[in-house]
Amino acid sequence: MCGVFGIFNSKTPAEDTFYGLYSLQHRGQEAAGIVVADYSKTRKKTLFRQHKGMGLVSEVFRDETVFDDLGGYAAIGHNRYSTTGSSTATSNIQPFSLTYRSGSLAIAHNGNLTNSRKLRRELTELGVIFQASSDTEIIPHLAARSREKEPLQQIYDALKQVKGAYSMVLLANNQMIAARDPHGFRPLALGKKTDPITGELAYVVASETCAFDIIQAEYIRDIEPGEILLIDHLAVANEKPTSLFLPTSERKARCIFEYVYFARPDSFIFSNSVDKVRRNLGKNLARESAITPIPGEKELTVVSVPDSSNTAALGFVRESNRMNRPARFEHGLIRNHYVGRTFIQPGVQSRDIKVRSKYNIVRGVLQDRPIILIDDSIVRGTTARMLIKLIHEAGPSAIHLHISSPPITNPCFYGMDFPTKRQLLTHMFDSLEGEFDEIDKIREYIGVDSLKYLSMEGLLASVPSFEGESCSYCTACFSGDYPIPVNEASIDKDEND
Amino acid sequence: MCGVFGIFNSKTPAEDTFYGLYSLQHRGQEAAGIVVADYSKTRKKTLFRQHKGMGLVSEVFRDETVFDDLGGYAAIGHNRYSTTGSSTATSNIQPFSLTYRSGSLAIAHNGNLTNSRKLRRELTELGVIFQASSDTEIIPHLAARSREKEPLQQIYDALKQVKGAYSMVLLANNQMIAARDPHGFRPLALGKKTDPITGELAYVVASETCAFDIIQAEYIRDIEPGEILLIDHLAVANEKPTSLFLPTSERKARCIFEYVYFARPDSFIFSNSVDKVRRNLGKNLARESAITPIPGEKELTVVSVPDSSNTAALGFVRESNRMNRPARFEHGLIRNHYVGRTFIQPGVQSRDIKVRSKYNIVRGVLQDRPIILIDDSIVRGTTARMLIKLIHEAGPSAIHLHISSPPITNPCFYGMDFPTKRQLLTHMFDSLEGEFDEIDKIREYIGVDSLKYLSMEGLLASVPSFEGESCSYCTACFSGDYPIPVNEASIDKDEND
Amino acid sequence: MCGVFGIFNSKTPAEDTFYGLYSLQHRGQEAAGIVVADYSKTRKKTLFRQHKGMGLVSEVFRDETVFDDLGGYAAIGHNRYSTTGSSTATSNIQPFSLTYRSGSLAIAHNGNLTNSRKLRRELTELGVIFQASSDTEIIPHLAARSREKEPLQQIYDALKQVKGAYSMVLLANNQMIAARDPHGFRPLALGKKTDPITGELAYVVASETCAFDIIQAEYIRDIEPGEILLIDHLAVANEKPTSLFLPTSERKARCIFEYVYFARPDSFIFSNSVDKVRRNLGKNLARESAITPIPGEKELTVVSVPDSSNTAALGFVRESNRMNRPARFEHGLIRNHYVGRTFIQPGVQSRDIKVRSKYNIVRGVLQDRPIILIDDSIVRGTTARMLIKLIHEAGPSAIHLHISSPPITNPCFYGMDFPTKRQLLTHMFDSLEGEFDEIDKIREYIGVDSLKYLSMEGLLASVPSFEGESCSYCTACFSGDYPIPVNEASIDKDEND
Amino acid sequence: MCGVFGIFNSKTPAEDTFYGLYSLQHRGQEAAGIVVADYSKTRKKTLFRQHKGMGLVSEVFRDETVFDDLGGYAAIGHNRYSTTGSSTATSNIQPFSLTYRSGSLAIAHNGNLTNSRKLRRELTELGVIFQASSDTEIIPHLAARSREKEPLQQIYDALKQVKGAYSMVLLANNQMIAARDPHGFRPLALGKKTDPITGELAYVVASETCAFDIIQAEYIRDIEPGEILLIDHLAVANEKPTSLFLPTSERKARCIFEYVYFARPDSFIFSNSVDKVRRNLGKNLARESAITPIPGEKELTVVSVPDSSNTAALGFVRESNRMNRPARFEHGLIRNHYVGRTFIQPGVQSRDIKVRSKYNIVRGVLQDRPIILIDDSIVRGTTARMLIKLIHEAGPSAIHLHISSPPITNPCFYGMDFPTKRQLLTHMFDSLEGEFDEIDKIREYIGVDSLKYLSMEGLLASVPSFEGESCSYCTACFSGDYPIPVNEASIDKDEND
Repeated sequence: MCGVFGIFNSKTPAEDTFYGLYSLQHRGQEAAGIVVADYSKTRKKTLFRQHKGMGLVSEVFRDETVFDDLGGYAAIGHNRYSTTGSSTATSNIQPFSLTYRSGSLAIAHNGNLTNSRKLRRELTELGVIFQASSDTEIIPHLAARSREKEPLQQIYDALKQVKGAYSMVLLANNQMIAARDPHGFRPLALGKKTDPITGELAYVVASETCAFDIIQAEYIRDIEPGEILLIDHLAVANEKPTSLFLPTSERKARCIFEYVYFARPDSFIFSNSVDKVRRNLGKNLARESAITPIPGEKELTVVSVPDSSNTAALGFVRESNRMNRPARFEHGLIRNHYVGRTFIQPGVQSRDIKVRSKYNIVRGVLQDRPIILIDDSIVRGTTARMLIKLIHEAGPSAIHLHISSPPITNPCFYGMDFPTKRQLLTHMFDSLEGEFDEIDKIREYIGVDSLKYLSMEGLLASVPSFEGESCSYCTACFSGDYPIPVNEASIDKDEND
Repeated sequence: MCGVFGIFNSKTPAEDTFYGLYSLQHRGQEAAGIVVADYSKTRKKTLFRQHKGMGLVSEVFRDETVFDDLGGYAAIGHNRYSTTGSSTATSNIQPFSLTYRSGSLAIAHNGNLTNSRKLRRELTELGVIFQASSDTEIIPHLAARSREKEPLQQIYDALKQVKGAYSMVLLANNQMIAARDPHGFRPLALGKKTDPITGELAYVVASETCAFDIIQAEYIRDIEPGEILLIDHLAVANEKPTSLFLPTSERKARCIFEYVYFARPDSFIFSNSVDKVRRNLGKNLARESAITPIPGEKELTVVSVPDSSNTAALGFVRESNRMNRPARFEHGLIRNHYVGRTFIQPGVQSRDIKVRSKYNIVRGVLQDRPIILIDDSIVRGTTARMLIKLIHEAGPSAIHLHISSPPITNPCFYGMDFPTKRQLLTHMFDSLEGEFDEIDKIREYIGVDSLKYLSMEGLLASVPSFEGESCSYCTACFSGDYPIPVNEASIDKDEND
Repeated sequence: MCGVFGIFNSKTPAEDTFYGLYSLQHRGQEAAGIVVADYSKTRKKTLFRQHKGMGLVSEVFRDETVFDDLGGYAAIGHNRYSTTGSSTATSNIQPFSLTYRSGSLAIAHNGNLTNSRKLRRELTELGVIFQASSDTEIIPHLAARSREKEPLQQIYDALKQVKGAYSMVLLANNQMIAARDPHGFRPLALGKKTDPITGELAYVVASETCAFDIIQAEYIRDIEPGEILLIDHLAVANEKPTSLFLPTSERKARCIFEYVYFARPDSFIFSNSVDKVRRNLGKNLARESAITPIPGEKELTVVSVPDSSNTAALGFVRESNRMNRPARFEHGLIRNHYVGRTFIQPGVQSRDIKVRSKYNIVRGVLQDRPIILIDDSIVRGTTARMLIKLIHEAGPSAIHLHISSPPITNPCFYGMDFPTKRQLLTHMFDSLEGEFDEIDKIREYIGVDSLKYLSMEGLLASVPSFEGESCSYCTACFSGDYPIPVNEASIDKDEND
Repeated sequence: MCGVFGIFNSKTPAEDTFYGLYSLQHRGQEAAGIVVADYSKTRKKTLFRQHKGMGLVSEVFRDETVFDDLGGYAAIGHNRYSTTGSSTATSNIQPFSLTYRSGSLAIAHNGNLTNSRKLRRELTELGVIFQASSDTEIIPHLAARSREKEPLQQIYDALKQVKGAYSMVLLANNQMIAARDPHGFRPLALGKKTDPITGELAYVVASETCAFDIIQAEYIRDIEPGEILLIDHLAVANEKPTSLFLPTSERKARCIFEYVYFARPDSFIFSNSVDKVRRNLGKNLARESAITPIPGEKELTVVSVPDSSNTAALGFVRESNRMNRPARFEHGLIRNHYVGRTFIQPGVQSRDIKVRSKYNIVRGVLQDRPIILIDDSIVRGTTARMLIKLIHEAGPSAIHLHISSPPITNPCFYGMDFPTKRQLLTHMFDSLEGEFDEIDKIREYIGVDSLKYLSMEGLLASVPSFEGESCSYCTACFSGDYPIPVNEASIDKDEND
């Protein structure tokens, strides 16, 4: 997972991109970078300048004087999530910028190509050299070898050859280009901002709309699956960016996990409010729930794992009440705001200090009461188990863990940083022989009185539908149904480990 | 405001103190320090070692190897809140450690002395030199001049002379001493922890009990107002710390603002759950509220300013529903988790970027709907005003701002970092002539449709009562009723500016 | 200018390279990096790991734990001199490492290609993308497009196409390759080291032999002009590296300025002692000098600009005495050892604080006495002028400035960081009309009583001669005689500005 | 050892002090600090501001913006040498600043008190608390207890009670005070500077005059042994600082080791040129030397350990030639300029890498020739031994080590950071039984062909004499003749370890 941002025709493109990346920080905390396009009067052309580094956006740009060198009229930025080996890490920080036949190019990319191994092999056979291990480098190489003259066409040629999940923003000389793969795996939104003083129009592109809000830009629409959008000074003048479209896929494959966990609740992705979808998840979970108030108790006590499950918990409570199963939402867990990326854990006395550093229990809310704990998902189960242990210290009479999505049973090959199959909690008991209820084993391992996952039907009923599409989402991590054939992708995955 | 922590008879006192300070981080983000008591076999006595620095606990102790030099059997730590001029700052970082007639002393102090100017003057007349501008330095000077031989008695002698608010932890050679002023302004709790392996008992002292939870220590009781508690190896062996008591005050003066805003909701302070008190504040606010669902709307939409007002909002909703004024709690504001102490704001385009960096709106929840926004308090009003401006962008049909405490009308002379009277929002219109409704002026300035503060009666009805006390709380910031005469204190305040 | 280092078959290649780069620090203070080749048992092939950064070697490798990740059997390293714009700088830090058709490649390069513009243009036409602005990146691109299978042959193919000055070390999978251009502009030496414990042989390559001394390696010979040397495990076993030779140039073009100023006096370059050559420069300067002891003074007082001119000054004194012109060497200037790369100059009161921070005068040595000041060269003249101003404060009766090389009249296109023609002191008076003695104008500008440059004959008489070569040195900066045609090179130079 | 600096009536006192400390860097590399006196118009009195930190001056003041907060009219600064335990170190960084009865005081101190243990004990009995372990803190305590009203008188009272070596500069409200102990152990010079624009006079005080040169101040005279000098605005107006004098000692005790090694050669200390004294040391060493040119060799080759022994070597050569023992000075060792305080030594292969990192040999100068190596002193002998090993690699036919001072046989109790007696090379063979020539044992250990120390007579003949003084120097480290009784001092020394 990563976050991308781009802005064109701003007086302060680097600052805008800083705030945009800052609001997309949840999509990647490992590294950040900004490339700015500035017009050089002496050289009479657009030049790129950049600043990149390891860490949070606020760490990479801790020294404000950095912005003195980042003036210009357009910029793109990137937050990196994945950890690909510390020693070679710095050369992998995006955006990548480079020069080629047609001038300068910079690229910020969110996603995962599934035919990268094949393309890399073909390109190296042709004499191409690679300086980073990231998939992203393939795209400018393909573009540079296109026979087309215009960057937009070159990018089109390049993207026709790649398969997989991508949402990307590029600077190509004095143009900004945004592209999204034909399946539409990852979100990418288009916005605009009118300068409060000059009245000039700037176009903005971002992974999520929360990046528009922070700079007071306005959401226009999503970049469509398969769309390659060009923004240049003419587009600004006409208020009309132009687009090319890649051959579209029969089915779409929006990442449903973005709605479940990854995106921020205040964002719109895939044209819809994340908050609303999560509320639906909670409502559907309530409908499927078997927990009712115990005799003598007037209400169910519903507690969320903050902050990601708050909205689902509110939806759960609302629907429960509607169903005449009285319930109330409680803040039974407090989240510490000072957990940083660089939080050390000296002399770790017990394995659970990590969870204790992030959460604490509110005893009065939990004690002597059966509680329904709402969480969005369980991946490895380690954190969930320690969190349950912590909650037990408050002395609830029972813990009913409700997960607002189905069990994660398969790895993701399209950009989500899930572990291998083996490490998923749902495969922990694969080697056990004999007959047993797997969910019950997991329940026992986690240490709760009952465990309920949302059904696949409940999940699909919670997300918006798109007219005229046979299938709109990728649910591979829950269902194993991979929109792009698994074999090739899985080989790539192993190769990269 | 500050946070203090101490532990005695631990195998890992510095690490424990690190976690304790980490969980008290909300009490002070400016600086942090730890002093450790270790027994030196070569010197055959206890030696102190320390590490201190500017910044968050996790920043000051970023380098884990620091702990290699901080072995021992006891430690105290401090988080500093106030900003007393950067250039002299480092010499003000607590704990202070020093040597004097009876050996070594280290002190971590939360509070504000009201006769510090007088004491400082008297001491300097006697030839005392001061190296820091903090009040805290006075106490060891007084102790060093006591005729007593035992540190406990010396501290007793010293504290008899000081007036004001303090909760402190000291290391005195091989003893740990905890003390709280006779009025009991600031919280201070005693806990214990049994080593899971050796079964050995450690005593713990902290500003709030959330610091016990993180290291799995158990809350025993509060340090009483006027109590000076001694913990040494004998106290550990007998499981019985000994205490001296300062002449107690006729009235007590627990800081009611700790309940309103400052303490963490998962803490117990003044022997009671903060969460529960905040819930009461919300309930009483609901009882006093005049807002009812508008015709056609089934329910009131209640939104809190996260995270400090969450519990009050839940209490409000609960009581509203009980009163048959249907209401529901909503997460209409999202708080960004990545706002750090060092967050820069390059090229600030608009004054409200600080608020935008911390909060974002969830449009779906707010749009076209009248909302009741619950906040805990308003000090200067600047942030509230910008937050309201941000919420307006989501297009609510009305904003009813409810504050879960009365108007702040007076500065604090007992350790809370409030501005001078002049800077308080409630005094913004002091110079206006003629008749006008002050609350309405504030409402207009903040930009809301209605503004409601909790009454003083509502506040007092929300906090726990203490048997046999004529008065239990300091409400000076709301009422101007100063438990320790104002004149002297206010002079000190001006002097220090 | 830059420094390169490589070692093959060491147990501690990164540490050896660290010390090698450290002793070559004078060749480049801007950035440093090390790439290590390690055999991975799991992947069953050699993998590269790297650490690079801005600053001195000791700054880039300040954190010793970096070496924990840099184990292996071979390594190459690079010190960078030139300053090519801070914002894009990090991607220009060498060694560059990359993957291509035949595996992994890393390259560290000292020099300047003169046909880089043409090659770059040709390569980009073929679809090549460039990630850095350095010439160096061209070479792996050319190698990757070679039809040969072996890296050695590929490098040969690549180097046949480039023109200009280069000395480089590469890692190619499990081999180390060292190459020097056919003119032999930059030095490059081969050495070996026998492990004191295991007795195993390691081969070492470095810009100067002082890098051998620090790790107790032994100088074998120079890499010849046009030689491409291969070192692999077989070469180690046979104690016999193999070589290919590029078509050699009719003339050689060793940089004579390396002898005059750049190389360390304790190094051997171009197979000869730098110290000895500098002594010769001083001797020849003495022979050409017109300054004789004034009546009443027994001796000439000779002062050097420390440390670069020390040896020339000693040679001058020696020859003067031999010629019965009594002279003595004095330390009249003290050099401050704490001038670092990051030395700030707050509130600069006068322009000369930079010189004052680096040098101070020894009054007793200089006062009331005519002195001969020996310096190696003058480029812009700014520093010289301020230094002379400083010396005047000591009150010498006269300052005779003797330069141990001819006037610098032309820019360097082969890797020396000289300014453009316009900025050279020798062209300061180009726009003046009328007849005048240029050297006298310079003398007046610098502020000395007399100014004497070594003649070109004196320079050439000081450096070693190579049998069978028509011409052995590049003297372009003094003579304008460019061994590789100027036109193309000069265009490149302008282009890059 | 430490360096102190002070300036009064400058427009840029912090900047001046920065440069002063920078030029005194050789006197202490561990920590640095500056305290500035500024007149506050709002408070209508002088306030102090400070910046201090661990490391070189250029490191502590790396961030230039620090100077923005350090405006004022006077400043004092300090470089610290000694290493007194890292964990408590920061509270020991000077200047110390504090408030007391008469206002504000700041103190920067170079030296070592010999009755500090007794004074500390007496003061603590009176209730004084100490925050640092340094001797320096005693002085303001004594001053604060004086019955006098004027800081000058208070300092006088304080200094009457202390014994030992000190040179110090203080700020006392709006005055600067400089003081030197009655024995005059440590140097302290007075200078002045006229502002080039305003013509205003500033007074400057520094450990060595090299600190005057860098800011273009002019040396006036030394602060006399026992003098306490007051500089205030009246002194500036009258161009006449006033002085008090402590009861003077019958004998003086200027540290002779300052001349031998510690001070910079371009400084004047004790009113005389260091360079000149070192030249004398070399001359007297030549007179005492028994080494003559061997038959067949025309000259002796004299090599110095750079840079500290350069001047002595030149004196040696000069005197040799005068005595018709032909000799020539050679740079046989090159000193690396990039050895920094933070130089790491990863994977140290051999113990001698530290010496190799600092020095390298010039083979051509040393090979096959007998050399006389001049060094200033030997303390532990570890470095000397490794340096000799390094020189042997160049293959000299013989190494005659000449030391320009007598053997160091005793520790220093007056501020020089020598090790305990046991660790001195001259006591290495104390435990050996039987008859043997100790110098020969040392010679053998160091690994040279002959070893010659300058005699005590030669040493005393080299330093300037002071009229009317029975004894002018402290030679305790060479002679064991301690000007202040040893017993007490030695106890203190042990106590502090």
